[in-house]
Amino acid sequence: MEKNALLAERNRGFFRAKKLLVLNVVSSPGSGKTTFIRETAARLGASLRVGVIVGDLATDNDAARLRTAGIPVVQITTGTVCHLDADMVSKAAAQLDLDQLDVLVIENVGNLVCPADYDLGEDLRVVLLSVTEGEDKPLKYPPMFHSANVAVITKTDMTAAAGFNRDLAFINLQRVSHHARIFELSAKTGEGMKAWLDFLVQQRTVDGHGPR
Amino acid sequence: MEKNALLAERNRGFFRAKKLLVLNVVSSPGSGKTTFIRETAARLGASLRVGVIVGDLATDNDAARLRTAGIPVVQITTGTVCHLDADMVSKAAAQLDLDQLDVLVIENVGNLVCPADYDLGEDLRVVLLSVTEGEDKPLKYPPMFHSANVAVITKTDMTAAAGFNRDLAFINLQRVSHHARIFELSAKTGEGMKAWLDFLVQQRTVDGHGPR
Repeated sequence: MEKNALLAERNRGFFRAKKLLVLNVVSSPGSGKTTFIRETAARLGASLRVGVIVGDLATDNDAARLRTAGIPVVQITTGTVCHLDADMVSKAAAQLDLDQLDVLVIENVGNLVCPADYDLGEDLRVVLLSVTEGEDKPLKYPPMFHSANVAVITKTDMTAAAGFNRDLAFINLQRVSHHARIFELSAKTGEGMKAWLDFLVQQRTVDGHGPR
Repeated sequence: MEKNALLAERNRGFFRAKKLLVLNVVSSPGSGKTTFIRETAARLGASLRVGVIVGDLATDNDAARLRTAGIPVVQITTGTVCHLDADMVSKAAAQLDLDQLDVLVIENVGNLVCPADYDLGEDLRVVLLSVTEGEDKPLKYPPMFHSANVAVITKTDMTAAAGFNRDLAFINLQRVSHHARIFELSAKTGEGMKAWLDFLVQQRTVDGHGPR
């Protein structure tokens, strides 16, 4: 763990030198990480070029979905390990042409517990909460939600079908992640994507020539 | 881990002596475990009396939901631990009046990775897959799906809204969990519950006076 903290800081320095904005995207399985990342990359288009590192226990299905969309992607297959670590990310990043990228998105293993403890050297930890999971998840998985800089409520097109209580979700998020920026969107319909993309562009250029 | 395997067998023996059918219910966060368990207990009613052990990192929300429904329940709060283990279950079970129960349901921490490695002494491991999570989850979390005796597709009332491909889900389940019994249901509407309840009754009475 201590070794991971050191390697994560090395990653952070390396990524800053490369002027990359780095996101660590975490969530339950099935919260819509891959669709969210694919639509983020597609809509940023030429203004900010996005590369992706994808972590999964098994299969390269998610990587294939992103690659089909023309996004540079590297797959990490973890076997039985329930999270990515800084060393895995460092090795995977070396397989991307980072000088051609502005944003590096790390899609973590679908898990609301273990990835909370592993800094990868990201600028922003982005936790997704889909409307179908229920409003109580921030309270039930506090380490993950507390450690996030950004919380994104996803699949808002299913809000009614899921009976999702938006006000309660905000109350719960603010209790556990009171410091986090909150976005609400449907990557499927595009609703709410613009505010999220504007935020990324602003984060990327805070000091005029790189992230933060 | 080896110690857990021994304690799990001790649990198994203890539960058999008590003629309990013991289920270990695992899934992603937000797949509907608590509603599924609550409706199972309510619909079994007087024919099979159900008690529940609930595991969560934090909060006793799920336990409170079950208690409100009149179900005997014990909460285990794991802090940052991503799974229950046999020792936690043994201590929690001691707080229930097991002689008054026929079925003991253990609601594990919401996580498709870590709980796969921890036998709790259950008779049946039951993995839930909600239609909103997508059809690919069995392929992406093979240890959990492979280790399950029963797979339950939940939230079928949202099949259309989620664009869930049932045929593909069955193909994926059968690749990873070819030995598992599969059920499809909505605990919310009741659709599909009867087949699941009939199965439980049959499992409970295989030899006429206890589980299997």
